[in-house]
Amino acid sequence: MLNQAVKLISVDDHVIEHPKVWTDRIATKYHDRCPHVIELDNGRQAWKYEDQEIIIPSSICRTLPEYPKPMPFDQARFDEMRPGAYDPVARLADMNEDGVWAQICFPTVPRFAGHLFLTGVDKALALDCVRAYNDFILDEWCAAAPDRYIPLVIVPLWDVQLAVAELERTVAKGAKALAFSENPTVLGLPSVHADHWDPLWRAVEQADIPICMHIGSSSKLITSSPEAPNAVHLTLIGANSMVAMADWFFCGALDRFPNLRIVLSEGGAGWVPYTIERAEHAWSLRGGRLWGQRLAAAGVERSPSEIFKQNMSVCIVKDDVAMSLLDMIGVERMMWESDYPHDDSLWPDSRRTFEETCKGLDDAAAEAIGAGNARRVFRLP
Amino acid sequence: MLNQAVKLISVDDHVIEHPKVWTDRIATKYHDRCPHVIELDNGRQAWKYEDQEIIIPSSICRTLPEYPKPMPFDQARFDEMRPGAYDPVARLADMNEDGVWAQICFPTVPRFAGHLFLTGVDKALALDCVRAYNDFILDEWCAAAPDRYIPLVIVPLWDVQLAVAELERTVAKGAKALAFSENPTVLGLPSVHADHWDPLWRAVEQADIPICMHIGSSSKLITSSPEAPNAVHLTLIGANSMVAMADWFFCGALDRFPNLRIVLSEGGAGWVPYTIERAEHAWSLRGGRLWGQRLAAAGVERSPSEIFKQNMSVCIVKDDVAMSLLDMIGVERMMWESDYPHDDSLWPDSRRTFEETCKGLDDAAAEAIGAGNARRVFRLP
Repeated sequence: MLNQAVKLISVDDHVIEHPKVWTDRIATKYHDRCPHVIELDNGRQAWKYEDQEIIIPSSICRTLPEYPKPMPFDQARFDEMRPGAYDPVARLADMNEDGVWAQICFPTVPRFAGHLFLTGVDKALALDCVRAYNDFILDEWCAAAPDRYIPLVIVPLWDVQLAVAELERTVAKGAKALAFSENPTVLGLPSVHADHWDPLWRAVEQADIPICMHIGSSSKLITSSPEAPNAVHLTLIGANSMVAMADWFFCGALDRFPNLRIVLSEGGAGWVPYTIERAEHAWSLRGGRLWGQRLAAAGVERSPSEIFKQNMSVCIVKDDVAMSLLDMIGVERMMWESDYPHDDSLWPDSRRTFEETCKGLDDAAAEAIGAGNARRVFRLP
Repeated sequence: MLNQAVKLISVDDHVIEHPKVWTDRIATKYHDRCPHVIELDNGRQAWKYEDQEIIIPSSICRTLPEYPKPMPFDQARFDEMRPGAYDPVARLADMNEDGVWAQICFPTVPRFAGHLFLTGVDKALALDCVRAYNDFILDEWCAAAPDRYIPLVIVPLWDVQLAVAELERTVAKGAKALAFSENPTVLGLPSVHADHWDPLWRAVEQADIPICMHIGSSSKLITSSPEAPNAVHLTLIGANSMVAMADWFFCGALDRFPNLRIVLSEGGAGWVPYTIERAEHAWSLRGGRLWGQRLAAAGVERSPSEIFKQNMSVCIVKDDVAMSLLDMIGVERMMWESDYPHDDSLWPDSRRTFEETCKGLDDAAAEAIGAGNARRVFRLP
C-alpha cells in the first residue's frame, strides 16, 4: 500500500518553455534567430529557431480532460494551453490536484536531449541557447519551488569539451541530472561504443548525478513503416529503452565508469526481465563465440544483470506486467513518473492510479518506487 | 512434465540448400545465373546468383559442438559443414539425437521470406528460382521423411498475383505454411497497412495455413549502431517480433481475414504480456484520440488481446521469463523450436533443455507447447 504520507516524486515530466525563455537571456541582436514564438497565418503559433519552424503538437501541452478547450492536434497556442504547461506556479496547483510532490522535467523546444541545438548553423548561438535553457530551468522554473522541482540540464552535444564545461557550470548551480540521447548514432554523433564520450561520463561520475535517457531522445521512435498508425509506435515505446539498455550493457562505458547511473525514462519496465535474460544469453556466449572478442576488447567485465542492478533504473507510468515481475526487476530499480502535461499522463488521477498499482505491495516497496528510489538515484535530501 | 511419449515438433529450423538445388531444376542455359556454388580464391565457397556473391556464415550451418571442425566465422564450405545442415537423411539422425520428431525449415540462400529473389534483375528467372526452391523443399527435402518434415514455402514477393498462383500451386502439392516478411516496408514493398496484400491473405486463409514471420525476414535485425557488437542485436531479437506484432494488431488485415494465423518465429515470448498491455493502452485511446480515427478507417475492430488469442502464436527456444508469464501469454499461444543448425541451437540438448523448461507444467501444457499447438496451427495429422 502507498502510505498517505509519502510525497510522490515523478522522474519524468515536461516543461513547455514560455515564449520568452530565450529572448529574456540572449542578446537582442539574436532575437530573430534564437527560439522565439511566431504567429502563423492560420491563427496558430509556432517556434522559430534560425530557419527552422517548430510546431508544438497540442498533445504534449495539455492534459486530459482538455483545458481550457480542445485544440487542433498539430498546433498549439499558448493562450489555449493549460497554464500548468508553461507556468511553474500554475503547475504546482496541478501537481497538488494530482497528488504529486515533485517533478523532474525534460525540455520541449530543445528536444529531450537538447539536440535541437545540434542542428544550429551558428554554433556560438547554439551554445548560448543551451546555456539559456539551463539558466531558465535552474534560475526560473526550479527556483519557483526548489523543493518540488528537480533540475535536469542539457549540454552542447556537438563538442564533448564544451559539454563537460556546461555540465560543470550547471552542477555548480544545482543541476541534479543530465539529459542524454538514448542513441546518439541516430543524431549523427559517435555511438556510446566509442570512447568519444568518456570525458563527459567522467564529469558526470564526478558530479554524482544520473544520466536520463528519454524515449525519442534520438529523434526517432521505433515503428514499422510510415503508413503505420500512431498506435504502432505507442505500442513499441519500450523497445526504444530496450535498445538503449542493450547498448549500455555491451559498450564498456559502465565498466570504465562504474558509478554512472542510467535512468531509462518513459520506457516502462514490463520488458526488462526478458531483455536481461536475452542479454545474459549473449553474455554467456562471450567465451566461446566470436563476438565475445569484441566485448572483451570493449572492456565489458560485468554481466548484464550485474550492470542492471548496479547502474540502471527504469520508470513506469502504469505498467501492470512490470508490477507482476517486480521480484525479477527489483523494487530498488523501479521509479515512477506522471508524464505531465503530455496527454499520455493520467492527470489528475496519477496518485490514485499509483495507489491502485501499489495495492499488493508492502509500504516500504511502494514508498521506494514512488519516492525513495528517486531520492537515492538523484541524491535528493 | 514432458511425457516421454511426446514427439516434439520444432516450428523453426533451417535448411542449408545443397549446391545443386537450383541447377537440378533450372534450364542449363541459366546455370551461371541461378544460385550455384563457386570456389573462392581463399579456398572457401560462396553462392552466386546473377551478379551477387552470397556468403554462408559458418555460424548458421553448424551446431555446437562444431562438426566436423571449426570453420572461419564468415565463410563455410560444404565439405566442412555438419551433413545434417544440407542432407535430410543425415539430419534425421541429428534430430533423433536431439530428441526432436519433426521440423519446419526456413530457407537459407533465398533468405527467410524468399526475398533474395526480389533483388533479381531477371524476374522470369527469379520466379523459376522461387519455384525451384519450393519444389526442392516439397519433393526432395520433405519427401525424405514426410511425417517428420513440414513444408514451408516462399512466394514471388514482387507480384501479388504471381504470389497467389505460387501459393496455390504449392498448397496443392502439400505446403503447410507460408514464409513472409516481418516488415515488408524494409524490403521496399507495400506495408501490411496497405490492402496490396489482400489477394495473398485471401489465398492463405482459403488454404488454411499459417504465415510464419522469422526475425530478420525484413533483411534487418534491430540494433543501435554499426559499431554495436553482435551481443546488442542478439539481445534485441524479440524486438523484431514486437514490431511485427504491433503492425498486425493495427493494420486491419486480421479483421478482413479473421481466420489468418500468424506465427512469430524465433522472437521468443517474454516480451509478449508487456507488448499486449501497451497495445491495449493504444487501443483504449481509440475513441478519444486522433489516431483512433485511423484505426477505425483501417477497420480494426478487435482489441490486441483478442487478436493475439485468435490469430497469433509465438515461439521459444529457451525463455524462462516467458514460462513464468505463461498464464498471461496462454499455453495455447506458445510453440517450441530448436533452430537447428544455427549455432544458437541447443543441439544435441534441445529435448533435455525443453524437459527442464517444462518441469513445473502439467503434462497437457507441456505437450501443447512441444507438439499439440503446432499440430493445431499447421493442421498436422
